[in-house]
Amino acid sequence: MGLNTTSEIDIVRVSSSKIDSIDFENISFGTTFTDHMFVCDFREGNWQRPQIKPYEPFLLDPSAKVFHYGQAIFEGMKAYKDEHDDVWLFRPDQNMDRFNKSAKRMAMPEVPEDIFMSGLHQLIDLEREWVKKGLGNTLYIRPFMIAIGSGVIAAPSTQYRFMIILSPAKSYYSGEVKVIIAEHFSRAANGGIGAAKAAGNYSAQFYPTKLANEKGFQQIIWTDDATHTKLEEAGTMNVFFRINDTLFTAPTSERILDGVTRKSLISIAERDGINVEVRSVLVSELVEAAKDGSLKEVFGAGTAAVVNPIVGFSYQDVYYELPKIENSFALQLKDKLNSIQYKLADDTFGWTVKV
Amino acid sequence: MGLNTTSEIDIVRVSSSKIDSIDFENISFGTTFTDHMFVCDFREGNWQRPQIKPYEPFLLDPSAKVFHYGQAIFEGMKAYKDEHDDVWLFRPDQNMDRFNKSAKRMAMPEVPEDIFMSGLHQLIDLEREWVKKGLGNTLYIRPFMIAIGSGVIAAPSTQYRFMIILSPAKSYYSGEVKVIIAEHFSRAANGGIGAAKAAGNYSAQFYPTKLANEKGFQQIIWTDDATHTKLEEAGTMNVFFRINDTLFTAPTSERILDGVTRKSLISIAERDGINVEVRSVLVSELVEAAKDGSLKEVFGAGTAAVVNPIVGFSYQDVYYELPKIENSFALQLKDKLNSIQYKLADDTFGWTVKV
Ligand SMILES: Cc1ncc(COP(=O)(O)O)c(C=O)c1O
Ligand SMILES: Cc1ncc(COP(=O)(O)O)c(C=O)c1O
Repeated sequence: MGLNTTSEIDIVRVSSSKIDSIDFENISFGTTFTDHMFVCDFREGNWQRPQIKPYEPFLLDPSAKVFHYGQAIFEGMKAYKDEHDDVWLFRPDQNMDRFNKSAKRMAMPEVPEDIFMSGLHQLIDLEREWVKKGLGNTLYIRPFMIAIGSGVIAAPSTQYRFMIILSPAKSYYSGEVKVIIAEHFSRAANGGIGAAKAAGNYSAQFYPTKLANEKGFQQIIWTDDATHTKLEEAGTMNVFFRINDTLFTAPTSERILDGVTRKSLISIAERDGINVEVRSVLVSELVEAAKDGSLKEVFGAGTAAVVNPIVGFSYQDVYYELPKIENSFALQLKDKLNSIQYKLADDTFGWTVKV
Repeated sequence: MGLNTTSEIDIVRVSSSKIDSIDFENISFGTTFTDHMFVCDFREGNWQRPQIKPYEPFLLDPSAKVFHYGQAIFEGMKAYKDEHDDVWLFRPDQNMDRFNKSAKRMAMPEVPEDIFMSGLHQLIDLEREWVKKGLGNTLYIRPFMIAIGSGVIAAPSTQYRFMIILSPAKSYYSGEVKVIIAEHFSRAANGGIGAAKAAGNYSAQFYPTKLANEKGFQQIIWTDDATHTKLEEAGTMNVFFRINDTLFTAPTSERILDGVTRKSLISIAERDGINVEVRSVLVSELVEAAKDGSLKEVFGAGTAAVVNPIVGFSYQDVYYELPKIENSFALQLKDKLNSIQYKLADDTFGWTVKV
């Protein structure tokens, strides 16, 4: 294995880039991909020689394990361009660690650091033109791994494909976000795979989310599946609640994804004197706080959306609207996080990594 | 849509069959496929013209939704050949209904009956040579559907592929099966997707099962995730417990797959005067019954394994061995079910369907 020099990646370039055909001002999230992709296969117990090559479809057998048993994990991260045209990653070590935790939980091989990191750096280096300057412009990075071995027997695959694909993006959400608090459906089980960024966790949410959409809500805030009394997280975001001047967010657990945005916001808030309490928040507390006016803000936090203010929530068919406030913690924290990511402020935490 | 005549399936045959190269006596489950497959795509809100064509790999975009968000469901059923060379299906309507329930839960389009059934019948008709005579020989049938639309945004796909592939098989399990009762890990959440035959439910079990294997156990019997006190089902089988002369099995729920074998065995047992109680069995009851000798049998029931006697179980690191008994209910029921499936006995239930 041991890939110590970046020269060990085979690189095949496109003959001509499609970048000039892209309208970067009108791009919808996750639908446009750059010219190249990174691919590294695992078989016979070993990672094979990695490649960077033109972005293109690939062949799989109809019995490929990913289709039948869902061994598939991913990460979501971003690259940012600063005013000097330098390109930066944000805490990529966190994503790599989480990826490998997901891999372990799904009985998939961990991706060695040199493959993950040199793949990431070299691919983005090749695609730097695709990272556009200006707040809100990013290159969304999607590392993922799927089971490509064939055979319809419910057991782990012996063959896997690790890939990185890149998609230029503006911010993920637009418009007002109203949420429903889950009363029946659930995202994760105790002793389940909720803490893994496993493909199956997402499709499990589509049907309940569709029902929420039909009622005019964009997202669901999941609760613990055993009692539906504790607030956990949203579909692709961790969630913060501001009651008076304290920020609350659920502790990570085996049911909750350990979000990089969440932990970064906690660090920024603590540095800047905002009181943060990491503890389970009960649905009943939220409803009480909404009723007595102490609930000031609710917001989601995740790489795609960065910080996403929520304008109201529904619980047991009652809709609670959040107040419009000055000095929103959500917007302050979003600004501060973005300033670090785009190198507009000092990165006192040492979170940014140059490509 | 409306496919009313079977002639509406496009059929492209292989130029020469590979059947003569197959050693049917030494086939490992789920690894060999027949010459043809059935394919029908869904796009722009409609099912497209179905095809039967040579079994072969197909192309998918790296951003295909099935890789990232796990929209993938399947079924498992079998075809049997009787002494007159007729080929039979067993309760295919049950699998179709369950498939469409899974589809709904995963926000995927339901497959119309005419597509599902005429695909199944015509494909198997074309491959009748692959169904071998003799008890234990079957053609395993794998209908499945995956999201083939592209885009890394966590929302349902607009494009899907429904396929049926066929794999000649002997019985699934061999050797003694010892199980561990789950104390920490779980298969399904309340309000989750446990009752769907969704791909993600299976990979979620691989890591805990690997840990069980390392301790010398082949399977896990899952318990409810909230309390781990109620016995639910195994990875690919429902579970029956015989205490004295009564058979117990958990009721189906949103955490448990509604197995066709399970419900068929219940019907046969009831017809033949075996007392069956469908109710939650507590782990504590099982342990008590094992200690006082009233626990006579534990067995799994599923299409692949048919009936799978369990020789012992471990709970809280104590191993409980099951007695070797005469007049095993497991073996009686297996015989009776097989007799119906292979047309050796009268099918008084009307379960078998000729291809
Ligand atoms: C379920 C879930 N929770 C939370 C998050 C937020 O995590 P991060 O901030 O690392 O993007 C994500 C998205 O990545 C997610 O999928
Ligand atoms: C989780 C699970 N439970 C039970 C079963 C048994 O169901 P059936 O008897 O319909 O094959 C299966 C397999 O099909 C399964 O995957």
